[in-house]
Amino acid sequence: MKLAGPEIGDRIGDPIQHGGNLSRARALFPHAPEPWVDLSTGISPHSYPHSPLPGNAFTRLPEVASAERLKVLAAAAYGVPSAAHVAAGPGTQILLPMVADLIARKGQAAVLSPTYAEHARAARLAGFEVMETADLDRLAEADLAVIVNPNNPTGRIVSRADLLALAAIMRAKGGFLVVDEAFMDVAEASSVTDAVDAGGLVVLRSFGKFYGMAGLRLGFVISHPETIARIENRLGPWAVSGPALHVANEALGDTEWQNAMRLRLKEDAARLDALLGAAGIPVADGTSLFRFIRDPRAQAIFRHLGEKGILVRRFEERPDDLRIGLPGDSDWPRLEEALRSI
Amino acid sequence: MKLAGPEIGDRIGDPIQHGGNLSRARALFPHAPEPWVDLSTGISPHSYPHSPLPGNAFTRLPEVASAERLKVLAAAAYGVPSAAHVAAGPGTQILLPMVADLIARKGQAAVLSPTYAEHARAARLAGFEVMETADLDRLAEADLAVIVNPNNPTGRIVSRADLLALAAIMRAKGGFLVVDEAFMDVAEASSVTDAVDAGGLVVLRSFGKFYGMAGLRLGFVISHPETIARIENRLGPWAVSGPALHVANEALGDTEWQNAMRLRLKEDAARLDALLGAAGIPVADGTSLFRFIRDPRAQAIFRHLGEKGILVRRFEERPDDLRIGLPGDSDWPRLEEALRSI
Repeated sequence: MKLAGPEIGDRIGDPIQHGGNLSRARALFPHAPEPWVDLSTGISPHSYPHSPLPGNAFTRLPEVASAERLKVLAAAAYGVPSAAHVAAGPGTQILLPMVADLIARKGQAAVLSPTYAEHARAARLAGFEVMETADLDRLAEADLAVIVNPNNPTGRIVSRADLLALAAIMRAKGGFLVVDEAFMDVAEASSVTDAVDAGGLVVLRSFGKFYGMAGLRLGFVISHPETIARIENRLGPWAVSGPALHVANEALGDTEWQNAMRLRLKEDAARLDALLGAAGIPVADGTSLFRFIRDPRAQAIFRHLGEKGILVRRFEERPDDLRIGLPGDSDWPRLEEALRSI
Repeated sequence: MKLAGPEIGDRIGDPIQHGGNLSRARALFPHAPEPWVDLSTGISPHSYPHSPLPGNAFTRLPEVASAERLKVLAAAAYGVPSAAHVAAGPGTQILLPMVADLIARKGQAAVLSPTYAEHARAARLAGFEVMETADLDRLAEADLAVIVNPNNPTGRIVSRADLLALAAIMRAKGGFLVVDEAFMDVAEASSVTDAVDAGGLVVLRSFGKFYGMAGLRLGFVISHPETIARIENRLGPWAVSGPALHVANEALGDTEWQNAMRLRLKEDAARLDALLGAAGIPVADGTSLFRFIRDPRAQAIFRHLGEKGILVRRFEERPDDLRIGLPGDSDWPRLEEALRSI
């Protein structure tokens, strides 16, 4: 390992950076070989093998019956009491301010941090004072508590018992615990989707990550039916596109594919850990969809891989952290070679 | 014409009915021949002939550069001062409550009526007292004034001069005039997209109707850049799906197709008027994307066509009104035959 220490000379002015931005990668590393290998997201490289889309998925307004079917399938796939406990929208992102708006009194919000930055932004936008804290106990002080579970990017998991206790505290004061289970498909044990009927709890699920279909924009709110009715009022009719309905109505019902994919992603993650370990880069934690590294050489690793046309995710405010997603089948050789030359 | 008068024995419990619901049509007319001919929307039957979608439109997060390009193309296509005056979202519908929320003081909203019912609903949801009025002058009393132009379903057009005068009144009191130009692609003369920089004015445009791509879910907010920034804050990143970006980034730049399509839709509308006229059904008004009928036999016409597997749009609260969309090329013979037997 002959890499230098931290060095951030290329800050970008965006308020919040995100993975998956190849235009920015090309600007940072103009001499990198094409095509880029994008490991900067936690989106599965193995996209769901859906049947061809019929033309009317594009041309016609999405059918009410198809949107209802999506809710039934999502309830079954995510272990939710019933379809009335599920609302579907065009990606989890656009749902965040709607969820924060569920609480009339805009007092204190608390986000278990560090985590996905859009939660704090959405709560501020809704009018909350936002505390970002690493102390789980302090979340009980807030009216809106947010936990990403498993956490992005660290992989940290909060237990069901802790989550349900916090939800009860929120419920008692008319607040909400929001649990973002965007990566829960690969860590089902601590999901709380089955516990939403008691109230005080909102769970978010993302379709695009586990099914490798982030371009479709599809996410779910899971909560008490009264809360779901309020979210659906905001969404209005036709919130989910025809292409998303077609793909998700196949994928969410395909438990055979889901079970096989969980095993496959676990194997991929182990393979990635082995490669990184052999290059002297220890993996701190993560999920089967991404690995988390905390290392003083993180910026140098980012640059070394960037010059080889491999994009990983760094975090401007935490220069020792990196998140590395899984390569697609044909991308492993380039990653292996790049890591060998470190 | 041997049809009976009004008869509504099959009300549905939905708060707001919409066109395009074939499951409901099948339930109402279980013996109708399949496939249904759906003339119940104002969506063009001639969908844009886009190139095949690349796989990564589905699998990858939408690229920032592609979303920026969409804004540039939309600004040019809709005659907007600049891309900074445009926000793109997953359909106009989901944008309505966000637009109503732009005004902090939730006083009086006024909607020029009768019109698309979702505007009044969105304003109520945002906390406004809502007046539905047919008197254009009364809109000046409100903080949020809404005009669908050309109107859906009547086709009524409000002049640019009247719109700009009303926008000036709204601007002076910190309110907004919202002009929904969902069907303006076929009636450009009275568009006010070029006038948003003065403030007090929000224009909505729909992609799916003129381009025959309603399943994609794509709509635009056009306003002053400060207002656009607030809407984009709400939308967050990746508000538009990969498939929508792919199709719209071709279609919005294709002025040759757009110009030819305007002529073709005009011819289709004239052909539909001739057919209806021959059947003794006078067309009151409309646009090139739908025709409007006000006739005491409206419910009977709805039923006669429904039994033949042809769905048109009726309005529960106005039993004399019907809206009839354009048939696709292969659907004209069935409509002709059904109208001949009236």
